Amino acid sequence: MQKHFKNQIIIDGLQYCNWDRKLLEDALSGGLTAIHNTIVYWENTRESFEKINQLKKLIKDNEDIICLALKTDDILKAKKLNKIAMIFGFQNSAPIANDIYLVEKFFNEGLRFMQLTYNNQTALGGGCFEINDSGVSRFGAAAIEEMNRLGMIVDLSHAGKKTCIDAIKFSKKPVAISHANPIFFHNSLRNIDDEVLKLLSKKNGFIGLSLYPLHLKNHGDCKLEDFCEMINKLKNIVGIDNIGIGSDLCKNWNDEVIVWMRNGKWTKKMDYGESKTKSTSWPKQPKWFEKGSDIINIYYGLLKTDMKEEDIFKILGLNWLNFMKKNFG
Amino acid sequence: MQKHFKNQIIIDGLQYCNWDRKLLEDALSGGLTAIHNTIVYWENTRESFEKINQLKKLIKDNEDIICLALKTDDILKAKKLNKIAMIFGFQNSAPIANDIYLVEKFFNEGLRFMQLTYNNQTALGGGCFEINDSGVSRFGAAAIEEMNRLGMIVDLSHAGKKTCIDAIKFSKKPVAISHANPIFFHNSLRNIDDEVLKLLSKKNGFIGLSLYPLHLKNHGDCKLEDFCEMINKLKNIVGIDNIGIGSDLCKNWNDEVIVWMRNGKWTKKMDYGESKTKSTSWPKQPKWFEKGSDIINIYYGLLKTDMKEEDIFKILGLNWLNFMKKNFG
Repeated sequence: MQKHFKNQIIIDGLQYCNWDRKLLEDALSGGLTAIHNTIVYWENTRESFEKINQLKKLIKDNEDIICLALKTDDILKAKKLNKIAMIFGFQNSAPIANDIYLVEKFFNEGLRFMQLTYNNQTALGGGCFEINDSGVSRFGAAAIEEMNRLGMIVDLSHAGKKTCIDAIKFSKKPVAISHANPIFFHNSLRNIDDEVLKLLSKKNGFIGLSLYPLHLKNHGDCKLEDFCEMINKLKNIVGIDNIGIGSDLCKNWNDEVIVWMRNGKWTKKMDYGESKTKSTSWPKQPKWFEKGSDIINIYYGLLKTDMKEEDIFKILGLNWLNFMKKNFG
Repeated sequence: MQKHFKNQIIIDGLQYCNWDRKLLEDALSGGLTAIHNTIVYWENTRESFEKINQLKKLIKDNEDIICLALKTDDILKAKKLNKIAMIFGFQNSAPIANDIYLVEKFFNEGLRFMQLTYNNQTALGGGCFEINDSGVSRFGAAAIEEMNRLGMIVDLSHAGKKTCIDAIKFSKKPVAISHANPIFFHNSLRNIDDEVLKLLSKKNGFIGLSLYPLHLKNHGDCKLEDFCEMINKLKNIVGIDNIGIGSDLCKNWNDEVIVWMRNGKWTKKMDYGESKTKSTSWPKQPKWFEKGSDIINIYYGLLKTDMKEEDIFKILGLNWLNFMKKNFG
């Protein structure tokens, strides 16, 4: 166990990994208490229930080191038992199709985060890759109401700007952008501009900062110092309590999976996402964040800035915990 | 057989009926040659394949008076054999979810019309009931390309204005608004303004005129004279060759079905569509168009105007046939 994190709640607000014992052990030894884990992108209803079943089997098969988190108490309990608490999330609303009643069905299966959109437009809202962002649709508004009622976090990662603004304003519970960076740090369709960041924080919303290369200044060559400087700048915009990490770490997948993430089955042409080199391989991670346990490097990086240790631990987990509690109840 | 239609191709460009032998016989005796028949609104992929199977069974069970139309030749053949040619259509893109490959799967099952949206936003475009219409989305553009390639008609009924404009411009084959009226005739969210009508005709697009009460001037009390006057006015805007009938006739359904049409499963509240009285019953049809065979009344109504009989027969079927040929190939 990472000694610096012995008495701390450390949370990664988004990973998408092909989990095996080794990856789980790395996360646990690295001091992670909880991980919001992406289950699906483009999968339909039936496929999504199946993916949940597979994840539940993984948890069962490794129950000595991992458990499912349905409430924040489960995260605290996992900490005591030295386990990883896994939180289930969807990076798209494809699984609920056009059926409002499926939100509760998935909630009952453990789902606690759902994105309205994933790059492209859905029946709920506009995606960040669309030329025209509809904002939150009629069904989107109904879905947000239902998610609020149940205690499922509205995740605006991969949404368009208007959809972000609409959802932040409409949602009765604070919303999250679980994995993205500010545009002032790196200009990308996936990153978030100051207007949205300010509105988000005004409504107690949350941003999890991404370590996905295409969201970083200089991509895989991003310096830890630059990343930590960005955090210090960001806290002046959104406040120290509304920031966490949502690393977007993708481990143990072959290159077919990144093609699937971008293309699903929505196009017969090849979509390269935001890869300017038209690469169909996973982009190179920064050396200081190549695996879950590397979150310690962000701790060291922030320590080198003038940030108080108390605030560092907020960013590394406590903030996520408090934010989740507001939604999960 | 209706004597006036003996040597004519008569086509209703949209009906949604719970077909039985009696309804089919009424349509046949009324002189209808072909009907574009709606199969689904909100149904998912599996449910839509099942509905197609049910329709195919209906056709098989009544093969002496009905056949499936896959090409316009099938319509001409049906005319010779004194059968109704049924053309399959979806009033929504819900069946293809986010899977471009499903367009061809449904085409292979006989589907020849598909709406991008049904009132609400979909992954493909914006609906006419949305406050903000996205226009055609990334997936919407891919779907239109695929429909063009296969020969499936892009139907813009129930789409928002921007989505109509985008699709008319983007589609390489002419598109249809299978069932709606001009806004100059009756102002409704479902009806079409002059700007879209002009653009539609400029690109050889098509409009099928609706007899659904909420699309009519004075609703169920609409006078045949007013409807025919509208047609004469419309032909000056879009040209005589781009107009047909898409009656939107809904027969043999109980009131639960109109609630389903409006609500699907997308909302837990009650959506009343465009019913200002918040009625959950089927609206009253005009007396002169209560069943499929009443299409003869439009013939009589147009005869009373100064329209040439040749033009009347264009509107009652020949135009649809020519338009379909451009798409089906």
